Amino acid sequence: MPGRSLDHAGLETLSFDTCLRLLASVPLGRVCFIADGEVQVLPVNHMVDGQDVVFRTAYGSKLYAADGQRPVTFEADDYDERTHSGWSVVVNGRAEPVDEDAEIDRLAASGLRPWVETVERPFWVRIRPSSVTGRRTPRPS
Amino acid sequence: MPGRSLDHAGLETLSFDTCLRLLASVPLGRVCFIADGEVQVLPVNHMVDGQDVVFRTAYGSKLYAADGQRPVTFEADDYDERTHSGWSVVVNGRAEPVDEDAEIDRLAASGLRPWVETVERPFWVRIRPSSVTGRRTPRPS
Repeated sequence: MPGRSLDHAGLETLSFDTCLRLLASVPLGRVCFIADGEVQVLPVNHMVDGQDVVFRTAYGSKLYAADGQRPVTFEADDYDERTHSGWSVVVNGRAEPVDEDAEIDRLAASGLRPWVETVERPFWVRIRPSSVTGRRTPRPS
Repeated sequence: MPGRSLDHAGLETLSFDTCLRLLASVPLGRVCFIADGEVQVLPVNHMVDGQDVVFRTAYGSKLYAADGQRPVTFEADDYDERTHSGWSVVVNGRAEPVDEDAEIDRLAASGLRPWVETVERPFWVRIRPSSVTGRRTPRPS
């Protein structure tokens, strides 16, 4: 279809706006980061706030072994077994805790629940993207 | 419930057998590895072969920038928005190409389709686990 660009693997590359819309369309994503010499994968319920991804997680998780910002890769996807079609969006950026009360109140009003309901004192994390890329399997023309 | 163990975040930790069963229950997983100084996330259709995870991908992907084995983290999960329940299984191990013809024929007979149907010359990759861990949100008692 005209106007669609394909990558070397034959996947349709998605626009920034489409990536954000797809990210916001699913409840679950995965925060990937390096700790203990391995890639850690943390499933989270997320939402899109402006151009950032925000989520809640537990104090003491490996994500915050150290204070401050941490480079992370966030991924969300969807796949339809019936049509064998899917998409994947990857956000590279830095994760940082949200520590302003007004900001926390605003995010809390969204009703987003952490993946683990039983977490004590879940805190909000914001991923500020340095890049957002997305790919989708080609749709029948 | 007796016999269930919870981790520090209040998640139920899953047995090895349960992890493999859950991994085999979903069509899509994500292969995470480090390349170009960042965590790369590659969505794949996978299957469980014995205790290994196998999938097909394209030649030339960043997963095989170098020949031979590569440390990877594989993750699959599921989440039910209605019940706010979910699980996540993480496999740490080494990915290696499957290059024996008999083995390729056996795997090909499974009918597993690559995530990207249009890939030319997809090849099989086997992840040999060094650890398999899984967590599930607590179920109502």
